[in-house]
Amino acid sequence: MSERSQLRDAVCDANRALVAHGLVTLTWGNVSGITPSRDIVAIKPSGVPYERLRPHDIVLVDLEGRIVEGDLRPSTDTPTHLALYRAWPEVGGVTHTHSPYATMFAQARTPIPCLGTTHADHFAGDVPVTRQLTPEEVDAGYEAQTGLLILECFRHRDRSRVPAVLLPGHAPFVWGVTAAKSLENAVALEAIAHLAHGTLALGPHVPIEPHILHKHQSRKHGAGAYYGQAT
Amino acid sequence: MSERSQLRDAVCDANRALVAHGLVTLTWGNVSGITPSRDIVAIKPSGVPYERLRPHDIVLVDLEGRIVEGDLRPSTDTPTHLALYRAWPEVGGVTHTHSPYATMFAQARTPIPCLGTTHADHFAGDVPVTRQLTPEEVDAGYEAQTGLLILECFRHRDRSRVPAVLLPGHAPFVWGVTAAKSLENAVALEAIAHLAHGTLALGPHVPIEPHILHKHQSRKHGAGAYYGQAT
Amino acid sequence: MSERSQLRDAVCDANRALVAHGLVTLTWGNVSGITPSRDIVAIKPSGVPYERLRPHDIVLVDLEGRIVEGDLRPSTDTPTHLALYRAWPEVGGVTHTHSPYATMFAQARTPIPCLGTTHADHFAGDVPVTRQLTPEEVDAGYEAQTGLLILECFRHRDRSRVPAVLLPGHAPFVWGVTAAKSLENAVALEAIAHLAHGTLALGPHVPIEPHILHKHQSRKHGAGAYYGQAT
Amino acid sequence: MSERSQLRDAVCDANRALVAHGLVTLTWGNVSGITPSRDIVAIKPSGVPYERLRPHDIVLVDLEGRIVEGDLRPSTDTPTHLALYRAWPEVGGVTHTHSPYATMFAQARTPIPCLGTTHADHFAGDVPVTRQLTPEEVDAGYEAQTGLLILECFRHRDRSRVPAVLLPGHAPFVWGVTAAKSLENAVALEAIAHLAHGTLALGPHVPIEPHILHKHQSRKHGAGAYYGQAT
Repeated sequence: MSERSQLRDAVCDANRALVAHGLVTLTWGNVSGITPSRDIVAIKPSGVPYERLRPHDIVLVDLEGRIVEGDLRPSTDTPTHLALYRAWPEVGGVTHTHSPYATMFAQARTPIPCLGTTHADHFAGDVPVTRQLTPEEVDAGYEAQTGLLILECFRHRDRSRVPAVLLPGHAPFVWGVTAAKSLENAVALEAIAHLAHGTLALGPHVPIEPHILHKHQSRKHGAGAYYGQAT
Repeated sequence: MSERSQLRDAVCDANRALVAHGLVTLTWGNVSGITPSRDIVAIKPSGVPYERLRPHDIVLVDLEGRIVEGDLRPSTDTPTHLALYRAWPEVGGVTHTHSPYATMFAQARTPIPCLGTTHADHFAGDVPVTRQLTPEEVDAGYEAQTGLLILECFRHRDRSRVPAVLLPGHAPFVWGVTAAKSLENAVALEAIAHLAHGTLALGPHVPIEPHILHKHQSRKHGAGAYYGQAT
Repeated sequence: MSERSQLRDAVCDANRALVAHGLVTLTWGNVSGITPSRDIVAIKPSGVPYERLRPHDIVLVDLEGRIVEGDLRPSTDTPTHLALYRAWPEVGGVTHTHSPYATMFAQARTPIPCLGTTHADHFAGDVPVTRQLTPEEVDAGYEAQTGLLILECFRHRDRSRVPAVLLPGHAPFVWGVTAAKSLENAVALEAIAHLAHGTLALGPHVPIEPHILHKHQSRKHGAGAYYGQAT
Repeated sequence: MSERSQLRDAVCDANRALVAHGLVTLTWGNVSGITPSRDIVAIKPSGVPYERLRPHDIVLVDLEGRIVEGDLRPSTDTPTHLALYRAWPEVGGVTHTHSPYATMFAQARTPIPCLGTTHADHFAGDVPVTRQLTPEEVDAGYEAQTGLLILECFRHRDRSRVPAVLLPGHAPFVWGVTAAKSLENAVALEAIAHLAHGTLALGPHVPIEPHILHKHQSRKHGAGAYYGQAT
């Protein structure tokens, strides 16, 4: 199967899985992926229900957002996805949802605090909130500027160890080495947002101890990782 | 297929979809639609379970509430629906539910504040709460007076940009250009009520900035909209 | 079909429906019903999973709790059910669950306040909490004394208009004219407990106005009721 | 069927049931069981999705953690499970999840208070939180030390009457006489954590009275138990 055809299948599957994981209402979410040669991005078409989505509906665009293949309009959020692919060469997939608990933190404009090992297994510290776009930035191209805002927020952060961000008053963007991995991170983000939300309701929060955070990151990621199966 | 038959099918589908979207418990909700010629309203029969509902069960009434076709009693809320159709010529569908989070705001008698872009995509500002009916109004015809109350509340509001309202101590009414669209707005209302409820639990709320609200409204609705597929 | 056989089927169906309505975890709930001649009560066997439950598993007991038909032990809560049947001649079915939100109010020892029309449609006022049993009462027969406690609580309340009660630190008991109707009331109770719980999180509560409560009760119950279909 | 083969089936079933009971997200949970002769422990392989899990995937290890049968790596939490089996001869199954409400209490570092009979039916008092591991303990072998921490916490507690514990900033471990029974206790733990969480939101909590706690424990467990069917 061709590189493009494989990508279209993977991106279609990941978009449909948004529903199975309870991350989307109506058509509020989209997943994209990029080819290994990093010249073509596959993304969900705008406003199409997930249950009707087929691989040939997935839109292929180049890194400037020009349609390369596909009869439908790509997601309105495409310029945000592209900004991440252009700047971050190791990112192979991006997921955007309005999943409830992550979105509550985005609306409260509060980072998701790292309160436990579930969080530490997936995100090495708080999930940050960007600043808000100015009116001028919105006029200059809302979706592309949103992408730049995320890059700005991660200029001094480790995007591989915290592969998610909250847009204030909006919702999360999440990434990974593949479309499927970005989806998995979006599932983890929603779960740890739910845990943090319910933990904060029980009293003042206690951040996870650094030695526990480090242990959970290192047993799952990096050189000495021993979680999962050898590949 | 005749205009009436098409409407009956569409209204039956929308009522059954209330269950799939998790908006109803027992028989607490109803959807109606009106013919393009605006002389016949199709509505759910009162107290009939959704899973048993078939198109021929849908009751057809005229704008005064007289049964035109159907063996069953129409929903007790029919006079509320009719008041909206008589006054608002562009409204083609009305949905009433007791969906949990929207109803919590109705019971708290608190408008649903516009805290994010999810809300702004569907409702251009807070979803208002009407005043309560007086005992005299209840005696004068509870359900019809409820309709008038909604009209009163929207006398100085834009019903196209905020297509939903909360009745204090009761629940929401939602509308749209078709029965299906009113249902979609009811799904969006419940989701944004859930988001707002969980956001308020995290701290003092920050309303969405006007320039972001305007951007989300305009990219999805109106002349320059670019969300979804060209039609 | 014989009276007993019909009752066994109806009670089996109602017990299995506890799962479909999300009212039970593990085997924490039971529904019973009584024959029209009021000599035989059919009830769930103790500790049997709902998905394995068949009509012939339902245990038939007399009003003193002696097994009339059935190979299994009846629910440990049987004496509580029997106390209600003996004292309340119009009650034909009883449902006991530990459904989450109703149980939260029971554990908080707080009546479920009547905050809206959803509540008023099913319960004409707050759902009360009984006092706690004394150690002496527990020693005298925990389950039978629990029944007497419910009767005591309703000595000056209208059990037909508020067909549910909370046991402090325990969970609800709900009743109705049939097993199916007691189940429906248990579904309604859990839904209005959820609504009240989420409403109280939004601010100081406002009880529903008496004229609205009365209107909702009277349009659904009693002589002038016009909700549902004529029978 | 051989003892090992039976155990593998039972442990596979219990792991798959984690999904059905809503206790796990992604691969965040594992169940193990031990043979009656207490020489072989069967446990989930690390990082394998539940829906793909088959009995032959279950890993068999000895009490020192050496693989006896199986092509896959055992769960990274295996040393924690083994510590419990080595010290507690009557424990036949262990379940570890990050189920939401139990994990919220673990993250809040708050014992789950015994607020009602649902809790008392399964756990005879508060579910405790252990102390946190020191950096030295983490370095000495995180998962094995976690097991010792649980043993330390139960040195002066009754592990048969409170078969669950919370690890601070982490999640619960639960046990029982078989793998299936430890799973059932994990289901009960999540349910009572949900009830406690929602009860605490309603006001200051009232612990269940000792005479009610004792009654619920004794009618379900021990010599005079009369809940369930005779065996």
